[in-house]
This record gives sequence, C-alpha cells and structure tokens, in this order.
Amino acid sequence: MGIRVAVAGASGYAGGELLRLLAGHPEFELIAATAHSQAGQPVTAAHPHLAGLDLVFAATEPATLADADLVFLALPHGQSAALAAALPDPVKVVDLGADHRLRDAGAWSRYYGGEHAGAWTYGLPELPGQRAEIAAATRVASTGCYAVATTLALAPLIAAGAVRPDDVVVVAASGTSGAGRAAKAHLLGSEVMGDLTPYKVGAHQHVPEIKQATGATGLSFTPVLAPMPRGILATVTAVPTGDADPRAVLAAAYADAPFVHVLPEGSWPHTAATAGSNSCHLQATVDADSGRVIVVSAIDNLGKGAAGQAVQNANLMVGLPETTGLSVFGVAP
Amino acid sequence: MGIRVAVAGASGYAGGELLRLLAGHPEFELIAATAHSQAGQPVTAAHPHLAGLDLVFAATEPATLADADLVFLALPHGQSAALAAALPDPVKVVDLGADHRLRDAGAWSRYYGGEHAGAWTYGLPELPGQRAEIAAATRVASTGCYAVATTLALAPLIAAGAVRPDDVVVVAASGTSGAGRAAKAHLLGSEVMGDLTPYKVGAHQHVPEIKQATGATGLSFTPVLAPMPRGILATVTAVPTGDADPRAVLAAAYADAPFVHVLPEGSWPHTAATAGSNSCHLQATVDADSGRVIVVSAIDNLGKGAAGQAVQNANLMVGLPETTGLSVFGVAP
Amino acid sequence: MGIRVAVAGASGYAGGELLRLLAGHPEFELIAATAHSQAGQPVTAAHPHLAGLDLVFAATEPATLADADLVFLALPHGQSAALAAALPDPVKVVDLGADHRLRDAGAWSRYYGGEHAGAWTYGLPELPGQRAEIAAATRVASTGCYAVATTLALAPLIAAGAVRPDDVVVVAASGTSGAGRAAKAHLLGSEVMGDLTPYKVGAHQHVPEIKQATGATGLSFTPVLAPMPRGILATVTAVPTGDADPRAVLAAAYADAPFVHVLPEGSWPHTAATAGSNSCHLQATVDADSGRVIVVSAIDNLGKGAAGQAVQNANLMVGLPETTGLSVFGVAP
Amino acid sequence: MGIRVAVAGASGYAGGELLRLLAGHPEFELIAATAHSQAGQPVTAAHPHLAGLDLVFAATEPATLADADLVFLALPHGQSAALAAALPDPVKVVDLGADHRLRDAGAWSRYYGGEHAGAWTYGLPELPGQRAEIAAATRVASTGCYAVATTLALAPLIAAGAVRPDDVVVVAASGTSGAGRAAKAHLLGSEVMGDLTPYKVGAHQHVPEIKQATGATGLSFTPVLAPMPRGILATVTAVPTGDADPRAVLAAAYADAPFVHVLPEGSWPHTAATAGSNSCHLQATVDADSGRVIVVSAIDNLGKGAAGQAVQNANLMVGLPETTGLSVFGVAP
Repeated sequence: MGIRVAVAGASGYAGGELLRLLAGHPEFELIAATAHSQAGQPVTAAHPHLAGLDLVFAATEPATLADADLVFLALPHGQSAALAAALPDPVKVVDLGADHRLRDAGAWSRYYGGEHAGAWTYGLPELPGQRAEIAAATRVASTGCYAVATTLALAPLIAAGAVRPDDVVVVAASGTSGAGRAAKAHLLGSEVMGDLTPYKVGAHQHVPEIKQATGATGLSFTPVLAPMPRGILATVTAVPTGDADPRAVLAAAYADAPFVHVLPEGSWPHTAATAGSNSCHLQATVDADSGRVIVVSAIDNLGKGAAGQAVQNANLMVGLPETTGLSVFGVAP
Repeated sequence: MGIRVAVAGASGYAGGELLRLLAGHPEFELIAATAHSQAGQPVTAAHPHLAGLDLVFAATEPATLADADLVFLALPHGQSAALAAALPDPVKVVDLGADHRLRDAGAWSRYYGGEHAGAWTYGLPELPGQRAEIAAATRVASTGCYAVATTLALAPLIAAGAVRPDDVVVVAASGTSGAGRAAKAHLLGSEVMGDLTPYKVGAHQHVPEIKQATGATGLSFTPVLAPMPRGILATVTAVPTGDADPRAVLAAAYADAPFVHVLPEGSWPHTAATAGSNSCHLQATVDADSGRVIVVSAIDNLGKGAAGQAVQNANLMVGLPETTGLSVFGVAP
Repeated sequence: MGIRVAVAGASGYAGGELLRLLAGHPEFELIAATAHSQAGQPVTAAHPHLAGLDLVFAATEPATLADADLVFLALPHGQSAALAAALPDPVKVVDLGADHRLRDAGAWSRYYGGEHAGAWTYGLPELPGQRAEIAAATRVASTGCYAVATTLALAPLIAAGAVRPDDVVVVAASGTSGAGRAAKAHLLGSEVMGDLTPYKVGAHQHVPEIKQATGATGLSFTPVLAPMPRGILATVTAVPTGDADPRAVLAAAYADAPFVHVLPEGSWPHTAATAGSNSCHLQATVDADSGRVIVVSAIDNLGKGAAGQAVQNANLMVGLPETTGLSVFGVAP
Repeated sequence: MGIRVAVAGASGYAGGELLRLLAGHPEFELIAATAHSQAGQPVTAAHPHLAGLDLVFAATEPATLADADLVFLALPHGQSAALAAALPDPVKVVDLGADHRLRDAGAWSRYYGGEHAGAWTYGLPELPGQRAEIAAATRVASTGCYAVATTLALAPLIAAGAVRPDDVVVVAASGTSGAGRAAKAHLLGSEVMGDLTPYKVGAHQHVPEIKQATGATGLSFTPVLAPMPRGILATVTAVPTGDADPRAVLAAAYADAPFVHVLPEGSWPHTAATAGSNSCHLQATVDADSGRVIVVSAIDNLGKGAAGQAVQNANLMVGLPETTGLSVFGVAP
C-alpha cells in the first residue's frame, strides 16, 4: 500500500501539475484534492487534461487533509501558515507557497505584508547539505520558481568564491502559468501572445529568497512575462574574482544531481527542452567584452519550479529515491 | 531483462517522441536509435529535451536493428518497405510511416507514387476486432495522425449506421510538428505564429486511409496548419440516418478503451488537454440548424497520432497491457 | 476641417482598433472616445499601443456623442439600440454590434434574448447593390466577424446558383481577440496558447446572420478558438449544382472590390497575411473525393471583421472613397 | 510626381516591411524591388500580405537601381558595399545592413570577417546632432535592431553622466523575424513556439555597434530568441553616478522625438504595443536592492529596428518630415 498524499489548493496550475505527477507516481496514493470555489466539482472540470482521473475537489479543511501521510500546500501566498498549523505534527507537509521560505521576518513583511510565520527547512535539495536536511524534516518550504532557476545558476559560483556576491544582475523571463490562473485582463491570450513585458521592475518579492539561497549581497532582478505557457529562462551575470571556469564549477557542483544538467560546451539551455520535466539545464561562459560571467538556466516553472520540486522534496522526506515519479526528460517540441 | 527495442529514423519529431516514451518505459530496453545525416552524433544534439539519455545515433542499417526484439520505423513515407524487408522475420516491426497502411495499391500510387509494398495489420486498436489482430501480428502499420483523430470520431457512427457514409465533411487543424522537422521556409516560426493556413486542399493523401478505416464513401477533408507545436483538432460532420444520439454511440464504442475519453456532456475537446498523452478526447452533438451530426476529436499528433500509438501497438504485440509506459494525462497548461 | 467622428465603447479590442484607424484617417477628426468603467482615464491606459494619442475616455452618454457627424458604436451586443435611439437623426451611426443586423425578430430573440430593436441597412458593401444602400443610409449595422468571412466566401456562389443553399458546412477558427477583452479564465494566455478549442458547437448566434446574408437555407457552423490574437480562417463547403468553376465565380463577383482578393490559383489564404488590414483573401476548388466545393476565406477579425469594415461603411456614408484611411496590406510576419 | 525609390533585397522580412511602408508612403514612388533567387516572380509570392501590390521582383543589379532617386539596401551583411559602390553618386542610399555602420575596421573584421568597406553617416536620428547629419548625407547606414533598442535606452544616460559607461549589462529578447527568413531547422515554428533560447552568448556582433553608438566602454550583451514574430525588449542596467532620475534624463532627451515615448511612471514597455509602428517605448527606475539603473526599451525589430528606421532616415535625406508615411501607433492586440 502506498504513501497517502493530499493536495490543498489543487485547482490552480501548480496544483494541477501536482495532481498529474501524483496520479502517475508509483509509491504515492492520492487520497484528496481540495479547492476553494470549485469544491464539489470534478477535478476534470478544472483540469480537462486529467480526463480519466476520477476525483472530486473537497473543501480545503484540515480534517480532510489530516488523514494523509504527507500534504502538499499549493495555496496563494499567505494562506499556508494557518492551514499547516492546524495539521497534526506527524503529517509531513511540503509548502509550495512563500510563507515559510524566508528566515528574515522583516523581508517577509516588506514584500508580502502581514506577520511572518517562521522559516521551515528550505526545499532545494541541490544546495550543499540540503538533501539530508530535507530528508530529516517534517515541514519543508519548497523553493519559488524564479529562485530555483537563479539559485541553481549562481549559488555554486558564489560558494566557490568564483564570482563576487555584491554585483549580480539577473533578467529572467517566465511563461504565463507563473502568473497564476486568476482571470486578469493583462493575462488574456490576446494580450500575452506576441508580447514580452517586464513587471515589478526594481522591487520583486523573490529578491530576498534568492539572496538567502545564493549568498548574493547585491542583486538586480528583472522579471519578464513571455508568450508561452511554461518555462523560465534566467540570464545571470556576475563579476568573476579570478580565472575559474564557471562551467567547470557548476559541473562539479552538480555531478551527483540527477535533475541538473550542465550542457555540453557550446550548447545553451532553452526552456522548451525542460517542459514537463523536473530538470534544470545550465550553461556558462565569460563575456568577451565585459569579462562578466554569464550563466543561463532553464527550467519548467511548474516542474522544477513548483510541482516537480515539491514531489522531489516529498520523495526525500519519505525515504524514496528523489527521482521517483519524476521525469528528467522534457516533452518537446 | 527487458524487451529489446530499436528506433530507425530517430532524429525527427516522431522519433524523438518515441525515444522519450521508450526511455521511460518499464519493460522496453532501448538498444539503438538510428539516423541518417546525424549518425555518429549524440541523441541529445538533435533532442536537447532528452538531456540525460546517453546514446549516440547509429546509421540506419538492418544489421544494427536486427538484434532487437521489436523495431520502430519512423522514416519518411516510402522508406520503410525496403528496410522492413531486410529485417529477419522474428523481429517484430511497427511502422509509423504510410508504406503499409493502404490495402488499395492504386490509392497508394495515386497519392504517394511508386510501387505499393503491400498492406500490414492496421494499427488502431480501438477499431472493432483490431486489438486481437495487432496482438497476433509481427508487422503492424501504425495509423496516420489525421486518420487517428478522424477515425476515432467517425468509425463507430458509420459502423452503427447512425450516419450516412457518403457525405462526410472534415476540417482538421494540426500543430506544426505534424509537418515534420525538415527546414522549410513556410514552416519558420515567423511564418506560422499568429497564422492559420490550409494546405493540400481538395486532395490530401490521408483521404484513402481515412476512408478505409472508417467506411466513409464520400469524404471532404481539409487540413489546416495551426500555430502550436502539437495537437490535432478534427471537426467531423455527417448526415444522421435517424435519431441515434451520436454521443451515446461513441460512449458505447469506447467503454473499454483506456485512451479514448468521451467527455461529459457540454464539454468539448481541446488539443492542449491531450499534449504529451496518448489520449483522444471526443464530444458529439446534432447541429440545431442543419441537423448534421458534429463530432469533435482532439489528440496529440505526436502521441496518439504517432509515437504513443506505436508504443500502444508494440505493447499489444509483445503481450503487455496496452497502457504500459504511456500516459492518459496531458501536460497542461 | 474634417468630418467629426466619435467612438462609443472604445476601451475594448474593436474600439481600440477603431481608434487606431481613425487617428490615422486623413478625413475623419476624432472628437470623442467613450468608455464605461474606464471613463476619465487616458486612452493609452487601455491601449498602450496608441502612445502619442492624447485623449481621455469620456463617459458613454448621448450628449457627448451628439456633437459628432458620425458615431461608431462598439458596445456589447444589446446595448447599441438604446444609445442609438437617443442620438439626433442627422448624426450618422455605424453599429459594430449585433443589435440591428437581423431582419428576423424571432431569430434575434432566440440567440440574443430580449426585444428586437429592428434592422438597419446591412453594412457589407461587397454584397450586390449594398454599396449604394450604405451610401444612402444614416444608420448602418456593420457585419459580424464570422459573417464577413463566411459571406464573402459563399454569397456569390449561392447567388450564381453554383452551389446548393441547403447543405453548407462551415468550420471557422478565430483569434482570441474575437472573444473580447473581459477577463475570463478560459481566455488566459496559459489556456489558449498551444490550444485549439471549439465552442458553441451546434448552436452559434451568427447562424441567422450568415443565412440572411448568404441565402443559405441549411448551415452547419462550427467556430473554433485558435492560439493567435487576430484572424479568422473560414473553411466553407457546399454541394455544387453543376460544373461552374467556383474560383471564377468569386473572381467575377469581386472584380471591382478593392478589399477582396481572390488569390492566384494554387495559393491559399492564411490569416497572418491579412492582419492589420481591411482585406479578405479567398480561394476555391472542387474536392477530388467528395465533389464538394471548398472555399477558404481569411480576414483580420478586428479589421474587415469589425473596425475596418465599420470605417469602410462610414467612408461610404459620408461620400468618401471606401478605401480612405484603410490598408489593403497586412502587417506580416 | 513622387520621389522614386527602389529596394534591393526585397524578398526577406525587412525587405517586405519596406515594401509595405513604401506602398503606403504618400511621397515615395516605388519603382523597383529586387531579389536574388526569386527574381522574375511576383512580389506577392514572397509576401502574400501585399496582395494588391502589382510588382515583379527584378534581379539585383546596379542598372535596375540606378534610375531611382533613393535606394534601400536590405541585403545580407557583407553584400551592401559592392552594390552601393556601383551606384552613381547622386543616388541616395540607405543601407539596412551592417557593412557601413562601424567606424572601427578592426571590430568589423573581428565580428563579420572580410575587409571593412568604411563607415557612413550613422542612421539613428534621435542621437544628438544626428538628424542634421542624416539630412545632409547621401549615404546612410541605418542602425541595427538590437542597437536601436539599446542605444535609445542608454545613450542619453551616458551622455548626461548619469551612469558609468564601464559596467553595462544588457539582456535583450527578439522576435524570430530578427533571425531572418532563411530556412533553418532551429527556427522552425515547432522549435520556437513555447521556447526561449539565448544565442551567441558572450560574443555578439552587435556589441561594437552598441558601444560606438552609446559610449559604453564595458558591455555584457546577451540576446535571446523569443516565441513571437516581431519585437525586441531590451533590459539595460548600469551603475548610477549620482542621484539623477533616469526617467527624467530620458524624457528630456526625447522631448522632441516623435517616435520615442517615455511612458508614464509605473507603465513599462511591452513589445506588442510597438508592433507595426516606428515607435520606441521606454521606462526607467533605480533598483531597490542593487541600486543599479534599469531601463527597459521596446521596439518592433522590423519597424524602428529596420524598415521603419530606414524610411525615417530616407525622409530626412530628401527633406520630408521624418514621420512621413510612418505610424507612431502599434497594431495591437
């Protein structure tokens, strides 16, 4: 008999991707999926791509979830803390929201407002030592999508002293599913197709998480909305401290990471190659003119950037191989 | 130890999708992937989404393939026959090309030119009796993409006598991967994005296959190229013979078909819900004004329309459950 | 001094396209643009592509519009009649909505609900005799987008007796701007990119308008939403009555129509070629298998399908050449 | 009678956009369009969106062009110099290629290979003093697409001493038409839709042009291919020297530039708003965390980035208002 899992907030895009992964997971048994306004409706009304999954959304209540061995929270930022607090201690929890990611309560209040609910174990297994911490934890705050893409590109270089932490410039473009499923006029297909648009320029809420996870001390982060449903491409530049080959530093850091692929020299990551997978593709070089290190990172924002990452964490938490039920291969073209 | 399989013509889109499915298949062991101009190169040079698959393209030669228990042929139309003839009889073969689909040699010559190589068992398991025939066959001609979408929508209605076979009108739109991977100016992203364009109007080579598979005797088929990488949406209309509910006819026909989903009343298929899956979504109604039956069918042209269909046939041919290694769930959004 | 024009309902997509065309029109002087919830805001807040147009939305009130020589109504269906009735008789009016298109009050009630406000002169100048009627009218009901695409393809064939009117099958795909600008979850970019989806299958409100305009007596019309912002591709099939060459019939019908291009033989219309223009591209053939006539029509749903058509009508109503301020050339790629 | 103009290399995307603009230009008379392999074919075979333009491609020979008052060269890089040298001196020439942009012969050889043909007047009228130089010139090298977007964002800030010139980081994403019309497999619609991919990372040929035009001395420039036909979004960051408001610096610099719009505070440029226009949209801020200045710039790569820019230069060269025949308004959605 499988490990019993449940998903709270399963009607959104990250929730839908969780359901897809869990329905195909060989060890997890999906016992409940909850939603807010869609409670009582079939899961397939919200997610027609899951035709064949015979499940009805329950209301998002602790009693529904307490019966699971492990609960995924895919709720809007700010709603995880109260629900998690209402779950019994033995129930393991993976939070896909931001509530428990930051150690700095001030940064939380500045970007999200309200009171900080406290930090949980940070759910990015590829950081040094983190795999073991996640395996030992009962509550894990899974990484944000932009933070995954940027941290995997940058953290090893700062940790190795190969680049300066105080002058990092990131421009990262995301597919529209990263902006959520709420009906907003600026996210209509008519608006986003054929269009690139920056947003929250100069003050993005992911900055403190990225700084915490990478060790960067000065970070310019500009997000851009791109005309595609999925994918993040992060272009990360920093000032080298010496002659270290940035690609070699990354390759060494991820030698044992099954989901991080430092591509062959000359090949650059592109987002479509990661769609539907839990993989991160990386490449690095030194810019001929400026001398800055340039690292480019590609992920699926709903995969390694959200639901896939959460399942990877859950696998570790229950003692399974981290790759169980996840694909390293993208669905392309 | 697994069943040893090989793919000939693995550098194209259908070939890449086959590799993705086979790499994740629990019973098949992928022993070789061949290509023409890319022989000797890593598979990931052609398919960056398969990063992590450590395989090099071999040249497309019978000796390379003869060692397999089952060979998939994903070659351009007209190239399968000679290669298949050079493989030992015990090697099972699934052909994704058109060479062996038609029973009518004249129709073959008219649309494809050259000499007809003879018909194999037709690889659409959802047709009545076909599942058993495929299971008993060593050579199977897997269905064409437009033919899958149209046949699943239409064949049960003609078989049940619910619609007339002599006045069928189909308009079917396909994603661009259906047009292949050869570099052609009219398939450039700049041309296809934001564009719908019909092609081969009035004389499409899939017409004889669709007529053979459905029993239609008069068929107007208009294909349209749509601005998306994957997916086929077929709108099939025909004249009813009586008062039969077309949705009920379809639901009965596919009650035991794991990959065909007749959607709940009021829900209409859309292609994105089938992307990456081996599913076909169907819905039907009777038009209020004309009285014609309208059936809409959605598939992933590379999934149920090509590679997924081929794996489903292969599963049957080697005695596995037909769903092994395939997903009923799409990757959406 | 120019002819003074105003636009009611200028914050939507058709309204925005009207403003773009009117701002570049050499004879029309745009004196007012009205909106509902956005009244008081700069036009560029709703339409950033009009940066440089220094205009603020007024509220949609008769007094604001009565000062114009000609008023365009780009309001939701059902809202034009009351506003038009409140405008003085000498003010010419072009309605982009459906309120005054149908001569059959019963058909109006069946598809739109509510009381029918009466038919105005039908604003499709390419219909026989219609150019003169429009020039003489003070109130014109501009054609609906699907009706333009279908009628231009079909009306001359029925009028010439070249096809039977009682068995017409139309499948027409539209870009998302045709679905309007209201924030709806199923129109999010994440949903529509990579997707084709049919809607209102079997009972579309454009059927009575198309029948009235074309003379069709039996019409199956299936609309499909396509992943592009603009464009309609209509595939129209009908049963020929004899051996007339359908392309020749169309070419003769539109010999003097500046915006209708019957393409050279072998070239088929595609939507991107008409984007931003007021042109309709047509091609026709006889299907080799079924013998049905197939006509394909492409327009920009916001151009010839809405705002461009409305300006063409307005030009005629005030005695200008119908091409004034309109482009026959699309913006491609 | 109009000014007689001709286009060499009119079968590509920039050439097609030139034809579209010239066909609608009130003062220019298009007397010839030349092409290489398509000579002898109708222009509409290459550019179906120009249906209604009755013109046949001539071969690209000096004699065909020498009859014009002004010639546009839209040829591949490296092919303009020889053709221009063969044209009589009184024929004015606007080159859309790179051959005559750089003053530094070494930089030319390094990035393009071959011998440098010498610099012409640089065709970016919005640079200080440049409008007069262009008006006086007979040979003008029109700006490259990435250089337009970056230079308009950056040059005034460096000129004003508001940012340091030695640490500029640019990430710029372009629509696929910027990659040209040659049939290449990686530019197929199947590859680019749903995908973001960086290219020429660390060594792009536009770097010397951007440095020359902006005064930057250290420049990291990373280009990205985006899934849309048109548009460039450039994110430019630099280190401020003091407290100058970057938006105010830009607004002052472009107070009299009809095509450059510094958007209202809080509004950020997006590419779709500039499609089909000759406009550049700009916005700037100071990053809260890093303190870097961030400027975002949006253009249509075929408009202000190529054909529109060329027409603007041509207008100045023949004494017309620079806006003649060009639109400040984009075609959206």
